[in-house]
Amino acid sequence: MELDPVADLPEIRPGDDIAELVADRASLESGDVLTVASTIVSKTEGRVANLEDYPVSGRAQEIADRIADVAGEEKDPRFAQAVLEESTELLIDCPFLLTETRFGHICVNAGIDRSNVPDHDILLLPKKPTESAERIRSRLVERGIEDVAVIVTDTCGRPFRHGQRGVALGWAGMPASRDWRGELDRDGHELGVTVQSVVDELSSAANLVTGEGAGGTPAVVVRDWEFGDHEGSDELFRAVEDDLVRQALRNWRFDD
Amino acid sequence: MELDPVADLPEIRPGDDIAELVADRASLESGDVLTVASTIVSKTEGRVANLEDYPVSGRAQEIADRIADVAGEEKDPRFAQAVLEESTELLIDCPFLLTETRFGHICVNAGIDRSNVPDHDILLLPKKPTESAERIRSRLVERGIEDVAVIVTDTCGRPFRHGQRGVALGWAGMPASRDWRGELDRDGHELGVTVQSVVDELSSAANLVTGEGAGGTPAVVVRDWEFGDHEGSDELFRAVEDDLVRQALRNWRFDD
Repeated sequence: MELDPVADLPEIRPGDDIAELVADRASLESGDVLTVASTIVSKTEGRVANLEDYPVSGRAQEIADRIADVAGEEKDPRFAQAVLEESTELLIDCPFLLTETRFGHICVNAGIDRSNVPDHDILLLPKKPTESAERIRSRLVERGIEDVAVIVTDTCGRPFRHGQRGVALGWAGMPASRDWRGELDRDGHELGVTVQSVVDELSSAANLVTGEGAGGTPAVVVRDWEFGDHEGSDELFRAVEDDLVRQALRNWRFDD
Repeated sequence: MELDPVADLPEIRPGDDIAELVADRASLESGDVLTVASTIVSKTEGRVANLEDYPVSGRAQEIADRIADVAGEEKDPRFAQAVLEESTELLIDCPFLLTETRFGHICVNAGIDRSNVPDHDILLLPKKPTESAERIRSRLVERGIEDVAVIVTDTCGRPFRHGQRGVALGWAGMPASRDWRGELDRDGHELGVTVQSVVDELSSAANLVTGEGAGGTPAVVVRDWEFGDHEGSDELFRAVEDDLVRQALRNWRFDD
């Protein structure tokens, strides 16, 4: 497996065609996987905003006040309002905001970015990252690159372990996971690993070569990797019924 | 960045020298990262056991009874006993066991594997995976491969997202994380990403090419990847004070 960052992408603007910008700079081939950072997808989709666009609700003010009280940290209530508007559930409201975004991804601040935005205050995640991935993929197919997969990626933290790692927000041209159920090991025992989240692993791998900041490259081509002959699944985000940690968080409040 | 699985490793036995077995089959060079699945590390360290080695405590019996009651699933109380003995904290006791292992990793069943064991019932995780990684690394350095890093990997599930992905249990020759704090983006804003867990991302990347089961290759060489000029950190496992999800789990019990 080989991962090559796509060099020399320009600053991305609303309406830019990511498929074209990438295909002009990398020799994409059938079977490749293209990972694209959500930041540039958001920029092409005009997902920027200013804090003044978010009139503060009572709930947002309450959140900002409590974080200031408990964590001693100033939180702009307009930012809290933006997070609420991008979310369907607030899992942690203090000392930081952990929410479920409208497309099912759980992350801090609904993934809203305050860096990476030249002319506005904030950059929102793509509204429907899987549709974004499908759009980029179909533009690549139109250019003659058949059988290509596209993953829209982000980085985020997680419970139990420090640090952030790359994750997938949306994908097209391949399933999210590879299913090993029923397959056997060398000794004929059924495997301990059951479902492997390949889109997340590909996003993590890509994040190792993208870099961040001024020298960052928001697109990576993965070559010589195969999904292989396995069942696939597109379920990536857990529902509450299926997630004991979410259930525990519903019954808990930060102790100040 | 390139990832090459190490081909043709034999069935691993207690006392085997993983560094030698790998170096004989792959041309390791300075700057490479070698990932090794914890299963084969455990085998060389004789971390196998039989269920009859675990006389059942009252707590283990209670756990097995409750899981049978609530989840309708048969759990061997000797297996629950083995999980307890490998753990320092039980985070979820029903409908499955989520624990913190003695070296700080949080996973289901303390990472005990019931597949992958030819002559015993169970395979335990390495006792101190970072020491295991250091041992393998120093044997590689002895063979003249300077400046190599070694990661002992496993796969595990996570909250919020379905599926398993590769994670690091121990590492040597590189820090666990890359610290971007204080670095700026193209527009001079401070970066949203702060600490990047590169050992986990490398483990996930490696897991894409190892495969599982009969055709699995438990070692991967990562080439042409650089940690780069960043601060590093070896903190990977969160302490309770630093982990709201662990705090929430301490205050919660599965509702039957």
